[in-house]
Amino acid sequence: MKNKNKLIVRFLGGVGEIGKNMTALEYGKDIIVIDCGLTFPSQDMPGIDLVIPDTSYLLANKDRIRGLVLTHGHEDHIGALPYFLKDVNVPVYGTKLTLSLAEAKLKEMKLSGYKLKAVTPSSRINLGAFNVEFINVNHSIAGACALSITTPVGVIVHSGDFKIDLTPINGELMDMTRLSEIGKKGVLLLMCESTNVEREGYTLSERVVGETFDRIFADNAKKRIIIATFSSNVHRIQQILNLSSKYKRKVAISGRSMLNVTEAAQKINELKIPEGILVDIDKTKNIPDKELVIICTGSQGEPMSALTRMASDDYPQVKLTKNDTIIISANMIPGNEKSIFQVINNLYKKGAEVLYQSLEKIHVSGHACQEELKIFHSLIKPKFFIPVHGEYRHLYKHVRLAKEMGLKDHQVMITEVGDSIELTSKTMRKIEKFPSGTRFVDGLSIDDDETIVRDRVHMAEDGIIVVHCCISLTSRQIVGRPDLIVKGFIASEEQIEQIKIIVENTLSSYDLKSVDKREVRSQIRRNIKKYITKKTKNSPMILPFITEV
Amino acid sequence: MKNKNKLIVRFLGGVGEIGKNMTALEYGKDIIVIDCGLTFPSQDMPGIDLVIPDTSYLLANKDRIRGLVLTHGHEDHIGALPYFLKDVNVPVYGTKLTLSLAEAKLKEMKLSGYKLKAVTPSSRINLGAFNVEFINVNHSIAGACALSITTPVGVIVHSGDFKIDLTPINGELMDMTRLSEIGKKGVLLLMCESTNVEREGYTLSERVVGETFDRIFADNAKKRIIIATFSSNVHRIQQILNLSSKYKRKVAISGRSMLNVTEAAQKINELKIPEGILVDIDKTKNIPDKELVIICTGSQGEPMSALTRMASDDYPQVKLTKNDTIIISANMIPGNEKSIFQVINNLYKKGAEVLYQSLEKIHVSGHACQEELKIFHSLIKPKFFIPVHGEYRHLYKHVRLAKEMGLKDHQVMITEVGDSIELTSKTMRKIEKFPSGTRFVDGLSIDDDETIVRDRVHMAEDGIIVVHCCISLTSRQIVGRPDLIVKGFIASEEQIEQIKIIVENTLSSYDLKSVDKREVRSQIRRNIKKYITKKTKNSPMILPFITEV
Repeated sequence: MKNKNKLIVRFLGGVGEIGKNMTALEYGKDIIVIDCGLTFPSQDMPGIDLVIPDTSYLLANKDRIRGLVLTHGHEDHIGALPYFLKDVNVPVYGTKLTLSLAEAKLKEMKLSGYKLKAVTPSSRINLGAFNVEFINVNHSIAGACALSITTPVGVIVHSGDFKIDLTPINGELMDMTRLSEIGKKGVLLLMCESTNVEREGYTLSERVVGETFDRIFADNAKKRIIIATFSSNVHRIQQILNLSSKYKRKVAISGRSMLNVTEAAQKINELKIPEGILVDIDKTKNIPDKELVIICTGSQGEPMSALTRMASDDYPQVKLTKNDTIIISANMIPGNEKSIFQVINNLYKKGAEVLYQSLEKIHVSGHACQEELKIFHSLIKPKFFIPVHGEYRHLYKHVRLAKEMGLKDHQVMITEVGDSIELTSKTMRKIEKFPSGTRFVDGLSIDDDETIVRDRVHMAEDGIIVVHCCISLTSRQIVGRPDLIVKGFIASEEQIEQIKIIVENTLSSYDLKSVDKREVRSQIRRNIKKYITKKTKNSPMILPFITEV
Repeated sequence: MKNKNKLIVRFLGGVGEIGKNMTALEYGKDIIVIDCGLTFPSQDMPGIDLVIPDTSYLLANKDRIRGLVLTHGHEDHIGALPYFLKDVNVPVYGTKLTLSLAEAKLKEMKLSGYKLKAVTPSSRINLGAFNVEFINVNHSIAGACALSITTPVGVIVHSGDFKIDLTPINGELMDMTRLSEIGKKGVLLLMCESTNVEREGYTLSERVVGETFDRIFADNAKKRIIIATFSSNVHRIQQILNLSSKYKRKVAISGRSMLNVTEAAQKINELKIPEGILVDIDKTKNIPDKELVIICTGSQGEPMSALTRMASDDYPQVKLTKNDTIIISANMIPGNEKSIFQVINNLYKKGAEVLYQSLEKIHVSGHACQEELKIFHSLIKPKFFIPVHGEYRHLYKHVRLAKEMGLKDHQVMITEVGDSIELTSKTMRKIEKFPSGTRFVDGLSIDDDETIVRDRVHMAEDGIIVVHCCISLTSRQIVGRPDLIVKGFIASEEQIEQIKIIVENTLSSYDLKSVDKREVRSQIRRNIKKYITKKTKNSPMILPFITEV
């Protein structure tokens, strides 16, 4: 009887888009959730702090959720946790570092009573109809896992984010043996990440970055070295610590997230800090340049980050000089280029040497390139395949790659947010969509609709004209002259006068005793818009107020 | 006596920034201007259409300007012409294609009476104390020149934008012979472009793109081919036309700027269109896919461009199918990535094949890489060197390159917009700055100050709250309740009510008989701001209105 229940995969995020990864699996009355990520707003979402998945479907089914499993601790996999858990307090499973990072987020939002349950790679947990096995993979953060999920219908493998690093810093190879065992037994569905599917070949080992750094340390023996990188890249930080020890330098860590992550990672023994090597950033003034390394945040040109502040002389603890060599050990996330280059320009103006981008091996990706993806596919040999973590172009190319590996059209599928996929042991098909989408976090508020963002973009593109006029309650005549505020828009005095006249004329064309105020307001708006468009080719937002006095 | 006059170089744009290139040379009572470019607004300038140099200094000295010389016809060298010429109608010199493109701009802005004077490479013109020689260089547009300007103090060479293409499409090599003659006679100052100074080696020849296209044409013999590229790249268009002829395909040109440029270039014989090859885009429906090439605009994902509209099914003449291969033959200009990728995703959704980026040789740069820059330096052997066309990091690295070529510290200088450099035959020094900066073009208006842009960014980031209240002229009491409009910002009903109470309380704390309305307004603003910041961590723009009725 049980087999009559359907296995359904629901995509809440991460397909047809980059970021806010979140997927739900449903069987009978049981639901489990994989990851709960956010994405950072793009330039066309002014003033928005974060973008998170719309989880209203899960909220409506919260009694059925058996648990949330996290593949790793990056923002696009755990960042929306506080917003989800405050409504749906389900147990959360992940490796130690993942949960440390998750916990820091929950504390920051002042949540309590959450249930975080640490797992180790190779361990298994039962969540209702699902049995979830965590499998070690390599990635640009420690503690990353793929998932093998046994369901009554078959086994689902989710790659998480991964690369194959054959010389990983912590010595832990991706567990290809286990993956091949799972593959041999038969996998119903593979969901595999697609980030680097457009890149040929293999991703370089994280160790290569260490080799480059070693050369840079040797070449800059007399200089202070400052390295900006992603705080979550614990292995990169480990390499910097090791090299600093080798070259007899002290290390100061700067930037809140960098301090948080290193502390969390050290606590759980993911980061091994050589005895006595750390110094407080406030106490570095008397350390000779050649004996100091500073690890800091700011690789993306973030306005308040340590590196940005150093570059603008706004960081009292670190004054830059010609004797500084600064390494930006990160890729430029698209959209951040302008900010990053502004920081780089300012660093050069201080006389510092800056190493970035062009020197390729100061950063490597954490994601699998084409050949690694093919290895993953060849180990898992799934019956069905759905690419995840990518825009349409990535998913499209990943499907093409899967077909090159032998899958047929009916075995592959490109999905988008809101898609529900039903699986039997023999079939995969799209069924009706479920409520899904995007929510914007702005300061302390969460907004469900996009009007706010549209209004902001409109005001930003074209400015705003606020018009006010008073109508007498008794005489039903306009009282005084209309009043005007113009912001973000250039209006000449003549135009302002003309707008006032338009308002007066519009008002006098109505019998104000009986008319609907809303109708008058929208007529005023239309008349002003017509005039402004003709005169300036702009279309500012026009907000008329009518007060009855 | 004449030698007592000073030679002064003034930078109106293009140093410490990318775009809006414009430089003035001054000797005694004579001024000449080199280029008059614009730049496109970045994402932090919402609603701005164009950014142009502040030319108020030249305006104040317009009787002294002997002419404006254009190095080539790209927007960042000619785009601000209409805005400059309408105030300062001086003769403009450039090669034929450059002037055709300039003229199209002037006509579009309905200017008349301008004086455009065509020159040919190797020709010379006298402009007051200056003698200007135009020297052919290679670039991603035809008709590009470097300038050798003889002044009473010495010779100034300006590279314009260039690359060294040893197999150029039109057969015209950069005139290295002439440059070396000029160098041999002695050059006082070299101003050289810096765009690709961070790239090692040499830029590939434009011809390489043709070879790649040839392969793509052969591989896609049964498919329709659509190529998006920069309309100004006449040589690339020439190659596409030649290949289309070879493969017996007709060519349809789509997109206004593409049509304009090809028409202008054909008229002056820069573009040779094979007899009978062109078809009107409206008449392509009956041409079999395998016999058609479409050349179009939209390589940057511009919203109204041909390619973007095809991708969104909004281009009736061209319906995309699985039988289309689309080549995006352009680099992604930083900031445009998101729009371009959106177009690419949509093209894939239509089933089309898309070739971009990863296939490297479908676009080559028009700018010199390090080794080409070194060749230019070695031919010119200047006494002094100022790098141009780049952000600080480019200028810094170009100075470093010049020093590697043998120049000493006192021979090189990094400048910024507004800098004036005084040259004698033996010295180069910075003198006092001149009025300069940026002007924003928005619709039909030009704005001199940045308040508009700041207001827009503020509204976009944080939204706006407009508050209105009426005060009775007679009783000096508030009339009715305050009224509120909230845009681009989320306020709960409770918060809106609270704001109204704040307004009422603030008003009642004043003796409204005697008080200054401005003071009341700013107190209302401060009180609302305090409340909103505490409640939401946002700081919307707050605009209070008070009307006396």
